[in-house]
Amino acid sequence: QTTSKKMLRHVVLFKFKDSATPAQVKEVEEAFKALPKKIKEIKGLEWGTNNSPEGLSQGFTHVFFVTFENEAGREVYLPHPDHKAFGKVLGPYLDKVLVVDYWTQE
Amino acid sequence: QTTSKKMLRHVVLFKFKDSATPAQVKEVEEAFKALPKKIKEIKGLEWGTNNSPEGLSQGFTHVFFVTFENEAGREVYLPHPDHKAFGKVLGPYLDKVLVVDYWTQE
Repeated sequence: QTTSKKMLRHVVLFKFKDSATPAQVKEVEEAFKALPKKIKEIKGLEWGTNNSPEGLSQGFTHVFFVTFENEAGREVYLPHPDHKAFGKVLGPYLDKVLVVDYWTQE
Repeated sequence: QTTSKKMLRHVVLFKFKDSATPAQVKEVEEAFKALPKKIKEIKGLEWGTNNSPEGLSQGFTHVFFVTFENEAGREVYLPHPDHKAFGKVLGPYLDKVLVVDYWTQE
């Protein structure tokens, strides 16, 4: 998963409201998964749902792991209309979000 | 960064105490980076420090992104003596930790 070239990772965690239905959560998952087709600055997207046995997830259930080539890519992504449209899908179902970005180091 | 084979990701976020010095933080970074040499079940380690402009990091500054081949690898890692020894290095400087694990999906 690592390469010699440094990449900019964008790690997004979601916790959904208790009222969010499985269908609504799936709608959000599908909307996020569609973003790389719409925003070419997304160089990679990997995602999954928490299965840690450690009990340290603070309720977060979803991880979306996005890769940009550089900060310029992130600067296009964050205010991009398709990213904003995703936020409108997510918003009603979201309890909390956590975002950390980092340059890859080994 | 993605492969056709599913891998188990282990995402660890740290926030250090305000009292932790740069040298102490570096000691923790080095101790984590040494783990793959000691625990063969760690199939990949990537790490970095938060540079997100979004202000959604909840104070977390460090990301360690560990890859296991499967849950059996994680089961060896979590109670491994070298992992426990790392926890002893980390403990005095740690304010909070968040852990989420997921199977890779694209």
